[in-house]
Amino acid sequence: PFSRGIQTVTLIPGDGIGPEISSAVMKIFEAAKAPIGWEERNVTAIKGPGGKWMIPLDAKESMDKSKIGLKGPLKTPIAAGHPSMNLLLRKTFDLYANVRPCVSIEGYKTPYTDVDLVTIRENTEGEYSGIEHVIVEGVVQSIKLITEDASRRIAEYAFEYARNNQRSSVTAVHKANIMRMSDGLFLRKCREVAENFKDIKFTEMYLDTVCLNMVQDPTQFDVLVMPNLYGDILSDLCAGLIGGLGVTPSGNIGANGVAIFESVHGTAPDIAGLDMANPTALLLSAVMMLRHMGLHGYGKKIEAACFDTIRDKKVLTKDLGGNSKCSEFTAEICRRVQDMD
Amino acid sequence: PFSRGIQTVTLIPGDGIGPEISSAVMKIFEAAKAPIGWEERNVTAIKGPGGKWMIPLDAKESMDKSKIGLKGPLKTPIAAGHPSMNLLLRKTFDLYANVRPCVSIEGYKTPYTDVDLVTIRENTEGEYSGIEHVIVEGVVQSIKLITEDASRRIAEYAFEYARNNQRSSVTAVHKANIMRMSDGLFLRKCREVAENFKDIKFTEMYLDTVCLNMVQDPTQFDVLVMPNLYGDILSDLCAGLIGGLGVTPSGNIGANGVAIFESVHGTAPDIAGLDMANPTALLLSAVMMLRHMGLHGYGKKIEAACFDTIRDKKVLTKDLGGNSKCSEFTAEICRRVQDMD
Ligand SMILES: CC(C)[C@H](C(=O)O)[C@@H](O)C(=O)O
Ligand SMILES: CC(C)[C@H](C(=O)O)[C@@H](O)C(=O)O
Repeated sequence: PFSRGIQTVTLIPGDGIGPEISSAVMKIFEAAKAPIGWEERNVTAIKGPGGKWMIPLDAKESMDKSKIGLKGPLKTPIAAGHPSMNLLLRKTFDLYANVRPCVSIEGYKTPYTDVDLVTIRENTEGEYSGIEHVIVEGVVQSIKLITEDASRRIAEYAFEYARNNQRSSVTAVHKANIMRMSDGLFLRKCREVAENFKDIKFTEMYLDTVCLNMVQDPTQFDVLVMPNLYGDILSDLCAGLIGGLGVTPSGNIGANGVAIFESVHGTAPDIAGLDMANPTALLLSAVMMLRHMGLHGYGKKIEAACFDTIRDKKVLTKDLGGNSKCSEFTAEICRRVQDMD
Repeated sequence: PFSRGIQTVTLIPGDGIGPEISSAVMKIFEAAKAPIGWEERNVTAIKGPGGKWMIPLDAKESMDKSKIGLKGPLKTPIAAGHPSMNLLLRKTFDLYANVRPCVSIEGYKTPYTDVDLVTIRENTEGEYSGIEHVIVEGVVQSIKLITEDASRRIAEYAFEYARNNQRSSVTAVHKANIMRMSDGLFLRKCREVAENFKDIKFTEMYLDTVCLNMVQDPTQFDVLVMPNLYGDILSDLCAGLIGGLGVTPSGNIGANGVAIFESVHGTAPDIAGLDMANPTALLLSAVMMLRHMGLHGYGKKIEAACFDTIRDKKVLTKDLGGNSKCSEFTAEICRRVQDMD
């Protein structure tokens, strides 16, 4: 495994608890001897030439070179006109696919067991176009923009993901009964792409029906692909099924081989610096990253150590139902990783 | 209770299992001596003058006179250009509020207990504007339309509903972080109306956060109010929490005192005519209707008989986990209603 040498990853520790959980992940990677070198960068937007908000040049350059980022939670500054940092990153690196595997964690009780699905969200257009108008006083329009290219690209990503991850079905989630042209276009592209993936079962389902079926029996779902807003909703809903954003990993796939993996929970300023944060979501995102980089062995080892620690219930952070500190939880995972050698 | 005399309700039995479950409801109403007279009408759209789809005149006239409708599931004919029957009814009677109380049913097991919330959906605009364009080949826009008037009207309805139904809080559900102008307008109207209802607690929450929290702990929610599409999604999600569309009632409140209560499940053509259908959703919708008409005593009695039958588990239709026919389930509810006298 060492033959490839060390690969560089851009680390964006983020705000609030971000630095703590980032250093937890670095410790665990070190214990696992994962061949990763970290290049730390701050992405907080600055005003560039012409007054446009952009991420700092050294962060952009690091990502352009390394292609792979790991990012903690970001606080969007309240400065007037400051863009959402998440939206800015999506735009800067054309992160067109948000991928969230939701898998039930043994030992962490929720109303559901055996959830094992992946939401794949189109991340660049749809209801997030940012185009809005006042037509007349008291009447406002927002524009949902769906393009053939983005729809085909996300559909292709979803089917390729399914094939590469031994998953057997892809469900396109839509409201083409209401938005016949826009969701209709999205759906048509999914159908077309499905033709090229005869090994993967393709189904289509209304968003409302998916939500209803999801809370009744999530085990019926496998890979789901959908436009931006529906993905925003469904990915959070599914995170809820397995225990929330504190245990749910996320990856953003971009054009030109770029990818950023991230915890999607908040910065939790109330507990920042108190050694109380739970690094699980960022750690599992880092595991997704290892797999994406082809480092499956390291990913498997770290993931197992994390899940074993949770199943064992002896050393858990508060939000996971325990009394341990972030550093103790981290040390326990390190110990288990080292024991596996 | 008889002093008011018999009130007429327009009954729209609908398609598939519609007639069976409608006659079940009529039998139970008769057993309860509910002072309701039924005027049966077919609403299947016809082409009116100028080629516009409309509901038949005698159905329109009946509703205009009675003001109150009870409707089973409707099949939308596949004829080219035929509008969704549900959308057509919403339009014809300006049914601006869709109200769905979701209450856990004792004895009918789901992953949740103690759900007790109400979704209130703006039913006339938003993503359902029907306005879409092809900008250039491969690029499509759908327009989400939010107006001050419709937003204020639904917010006022939600707060009045909360007050009249002894509910303590209203949550506005939105994505004003993304759709700043349209959802922003909706949210602003909710805030303004909240000022006039100081007895009701007002909160605001992102749609994605609501979905996540909903599946983790639905008991934290009370009345939720939201734009059209979000209501479509959340109302089905919440129905899933308590057992699905087969047990969830729905009411549509319109301008000029019109209201239509309805089961929101499908027509189930596979079991139509086989005496296997479950009339619960239509019956509970009819109970909502009785309350809306001020006939609280009858509503309470019929609801109790229905819930007692389900809790008792001896006479249940197949979908509820039993072996009984629709007619047997209906007879059992009738028996219990009569026993209460
Ligand atoms: C923070 C916000 C802009 C974002 C979104 O709506 O996409 C968030 O909910 C997410 O899912 O990443
Ligand atoms: C049938 C369809 C038009 C409808 C909608 O999307 O509103 C349905 O899902 C509903 O909730 O009544």
